[in-house]
Amino acid sequence: MKKWIRKSLLGLDGLAEWEIRKIIETAELLNSKKEKGNSNQSLLNGKRVINLFMEPSTRTRVAFEIAAKSLGADVITINAKASSLTKGESLRDTALNVRALGADVIIIRHSAPGSPLFLSNIVDVPIINAGDGAHEHPSQGLLDIYTLIQKFGDLKNKRITILGDILFSRVARSNLFGLLTMGAKVTLAGPSTLVPKEFEKLGANVSHNLKDALTGADAVMLLRIQHERQSTKHFPTLGEYSNMFGLNNSTLKYLKDDAVILHPGPINRGIEIDSNIADSKRSLILNQVKNGIAVRMAILKLCTSIN
Amino acid sequence: MKKWIRKSLLGLDGLAEWEIRKIIETAELLNSKKEKGNSNQSLLNGKRVINLFMEPSTRTRVAFEIAAKSLGADVITINAKASSLTKGESLRDTALNVRALGADVIIIRHSAPGSPLFLSNIVDVPIINAGDGAHEHPSQGLLDIYTLIQKFGDLKNKRITILGDILFSRVARSNLFGLLTMGAKVTLAGPSTLVPKEFEKLGANVSHNLKDALTGADAVMLLRIQHERQSTKHFPTLGEYSNMFGLNNSTLKYLKDDAVILHPGPINRGIEIDSNIADSKRSLILNQVKNGIAVRMAILKLCTSIN
Amino acid sequence: MKKWIRKSLLGLDGLAEWEIRKIIETAELLNSKKEKGNSNQSLLNGKRVINLFMEPSTRTRVAFEIAAKSLGADVITINAKASSLTKGESLRDTALNVRALGADVIIIRHSAPGSPLFLSNIVDVPIINAGDGAHEHPSQGLLDIYTLIQKFGDLKNKRITILGDILFSRVARSNLFGLLTMGAKVTLAGPSTLVPKEFEKLGANVSHNLKDALTGADAVMLLRIQHERQSTKHFPTLGEYSNMFGLNNSTLKYLKDDAVILHPGPINRGIEIDSNIADSKRSLILNQVKNGIAVRMAILKLCTSIN
Repeated sequence: MKKWIRKSLLGLDGLAEWEIRKIIETAELLNSKKEKGNSNQSLLNGKRVINLFMEPSTRTRVAFEIAAKSLGADVITINAKASSLTKGESLRDTALNVRALGADVIIIRHSAPGSPLFLSNIVDVPIINAGDGAHEHPSQGLLDIYTLIQKFGDLKNKRITILGDILFSRVARSNLFGLLTMGAKVTLAGPSTLVPKEFEKLGANVSHNLKDALTGADAVMLLRIQHERQSTKHFPTLGEYSNMFGLNNSTLKYLKDDAVILHPGPINRGIEIDSNIADSKRSLILNQVKNGIAVRMAILKLCTSIN
Repeated sequence: MKKWIRKSLLGLDGLAEWEIRKIIETAELLNSKKEKGNSNQSLLNGKRVINLFMEPSTRTRVAFEIAAKSLGADVITINAKASSLTKGESLRDTALNVRALGADVIIIRHSAPGSPLFLSNIVDVPIINAGDGAHEHPSQGLLDIYTLIQKFGDLKNKRITILGDILFSRVARSNLFGLLTMGAKVTLAGPSTLVPKEFEKLGANVSHNLKDALTGADAVMLLRIQHERQSTKHFPTLGEYSNMFGLNNSTLKYLKDDAVILHPGPINRGIEIDSNIADSKRSLILNQVKNGIAVRMAILKLCTSIN
Repeated sequence: MKKWIRKSLLGLDGLAEWEIRKIIETAELLNSKKEKGNSNQSLLNGKRVINLFMEPSTRTRVAFEIAAKSLGADVITINAKASSLTKGESLRDTALNVRALGADVIIIRHSAPGSPLFLSNIVDVPIINAGDGAHEHPSQGLLDIYTLIQKFGDLKNKRITILGDILFSRVARSNLFGLLTMGAKVTLAGPSTLVPKEFEKLGANVSHNLKDALTGADAVMLLRIQHERQSTKHFPTLGEYSNMFGLNNSTLKYLKDDAVILHPGPINRGIEIDSNIADSKRSLILNQVKNGIAVRMAILKLCTSIN
C-alpha cells in the first residue's frame, strides 16, 4: 500500500479511496495491538498534541485526548471559549501562539467552516479538523466508514441512508464525501426543510419520504435532532418529526432484516430512534464509539509520520 | 492474606474486615515504595482511567487523578455536568459510551444513591464509587480508617464519635459501616434534626449531647457543616451550632488527652472546629489527605487485578 | 558556574545576575536537547507538579503545564476559583492540603501580592510564582530577558523601554528588576496616570512622551492594554491611548532600525501595536512564547534540584 502523504486532515472531500483504506487499516492494526495488551505509547512519545477547542465538545475532545494519550503524547487541552489565550485575538494569532508553544499537532474544533484549512496555511505542523461549523467532521466520517467496513467488508454499491438534519450537519457532509469515494450509494433523507435538493449535485439521492429512504437500505445513519439549538424552526414539533422520520417499531418494517443502524450520539431515545432499536443487535452505535478511538489514533500516527 | 476478589468498590457496607485490611496494607506498601523514591508507574501503565464526575468536586477528583497518574494510568476526567456526553442521555447510555471509549476503570461521582451499583451491572470494568448522593463515599471511609489504624494499630473497641450533619453524610455512613466492621464502637452525635435515632438500628450509638459524645472517645471525626447548601434549616444559626456542637477550647476538656481529631475537609475554622485545635498535634487532618492518595492507589490496583 | 541554591522562585527582585544567567543557560540546554529530538522526560519523572491557579489564566497555565509534562512530571491543575478545595478555606489551609496531596512542586497564581512568599514559609516544597497580583510574574520576566539575550548577547547598557500600563503590571515590575540586574537601562513609559514618577526610585527612567521613550531604544516591550478590566479610567479612550502611545507606522520612525519589539500577548492589533509591526521581522513576540516553555522547564528543573 502506498505511503501516507498528507500532513493535515481537513476533510474527507478529496481524500482518495486508498487514503481512507490506509487510515482504517492503520486503525485496525493499532486496535489489535492494544487488544493483545501491547502498548502503542512509543509512537507519539514526547510529542505535544494541542487540543484547541473553540466550540464546546465533550465526546470528540475526550476521544482525541484518549487517542493521543494512548500513543504516548503529552496532551494539552485548551477550551478557548472565553480563554485569555484568545481574548481579542485573531484565529491566526492564536494558531501562531499555539505553534510557538511547541505543538507538534493541533487538533481544532471551530464554528467557522474552513478554519482548519486556514490554520494549515499558517503553521507548519499537522492540523486535524475536529469539526468546523457545518463543513466537515472527518474523524467522525472515518469512524462511521470503518464501522460499516467491519460489517460489510466492502462498501461498493452498498446503500446507505443518512437520515435527519442534513442541512447543518458536518457529519452528514463528511460521510457523504467518504461513502461516495468508497463506492457506496448514499441517500440523504428527512424533511424537505432539512434536506434540500441541492445535495443531488454532490452525488447523493435526496428523499423526503421515510419509507422510500429505508426500503432496500443496507445501513441507516441517524443524525441527532439538535432540538436544544433549533432557533428557526425547520419542523413543527419534535413529536411530529418523530412520527414522520423517527425510527420506531412501525417504521422499522421498511428495513431489510440485516440492515444496520448507526448514530453519532448522544441519542435521543424516543425521538429519532426508539429504545429497543437502539439496543438491538442491528445497532452499531457502541462500535462507532470504540472505533472512534482507533481511527483517531490512526489519524494522529499517519499525519505525524510526514516530514 | 487472601487474594482480593472484588472488581468494583461500591461501598464499605458488606466489606469484610480482611478486605479493609487488605486495602490498607496495599496502601501502606505503595506509600512506602513511593517514599523510598521508587515509581509505581508500571502498575497501571497504559490503562485508561475515566473520572466521571456528574457532581462538582475538586478534592476527591484531584485525589483520584493523582492516584491514577502515580500508577502510570492515562487519566481522562469528564465533568459531565452540562456535558454533551450526557445531554439528553441516560446514565446507562453514558456508562456504555464511556466503556466503549476503552475505559479500563470508571470512577464515578453522582448525586443518585446506588448509581455506581447500577453501572457495575451494565459494564464489565471496575466501578469505583467516588460518592453517590447521601449513600456512601467508600474511599473517604477507607482513608479515615487507615488514618485511625496508623494511630491506634487496632480499632477493636476503640470509641469513635462522628459529629455533625450525619443525616445527609455519605462520609458518615461509609465510616459507620467500616468502623463497625473493624470492631470499633461508633457514636453518631449532633443536633437531633441531623442525627435521627434510626441510626441505632445500624449499630451506632446516637447522642444529641456534646459532652456525652466526647467523653471517653478515642477519636472524634468532625463533619463539615455545609452551610452554603442548607436550604431547609436543620439548626437555627451557625453560631448556635458552633456553641452547642463546635469543638473549641471550652468543649475540648471533655476529650481524653490522647484523643485525636479527624475532618474530611475543607474545615470551617471557628464553626465546627476552632483554629488552634485544628492545628494542634491531636489533629490528623493532613494525614487523612495524604492517606487519601495511597488508599485510592490501593483501590485502583486491587480492583484492576481481577480478570 | 555556581550551583543553584533557591528552592522557590518568588520574583526577580533580589535574584543575582548569575542566577538569571543560570536559568537562561539551563533553558537553552533543555531547548537544544528537545530540538535534537532527545527527551527531557526523565528529569521530573514521577514528580507531582500542582498548578494552583486561583486567578483565571490560560497562557501561563498552559505553558507551565507543557513545561512540566515535557520533563515527565505528573501535572495536576486546580482552578481554585469557586473550587470546593478552597470553599471557606484560607490560603494556608489550601497550601497545606495541596502539600499533603503529595505535591513535589506548587505553581501558584493568586490575586494577592506576596501569596507565593507566604506559601513558601508554610510548605517545604518549591513554590513557583506564576503571577501574584500587581507584584511579580518572574517566569514572564525571565522569558523576556532570555529573548533579549538571544538577540543582543549581552544586555549591559542596552536601552529597554517598557510601554503601557506600568502601574498595575507585574510583568513590568519583574522585567524592571531583572533587566536592571542584567545591566540594562530601563525606561518606563506611558500616560502619567499609568506611569507614576515613583518608579524612578527603583532605578528606572520614567517618560510620559512616546518620542522620547522610543528614541535610542534597543528594544520596546509593549504591555497589553487591559481594556476589558479598566473600571477607573486611567486614559480617556482606547483611540486616544492608541494615538498617543500606540506603536504604528507614524511613531515607528522614532525607533532605531534594528530595535526589536516584545509583547507578552495577547496583542490588541490596532491599539497598542499595529498589525504590520507585530508581524514584522523586528517583532520577537513568538520567540517569547517559545522561550516561555524552555524558561519554565529550567525553573522547574533548578528548583527541584534542591534538597
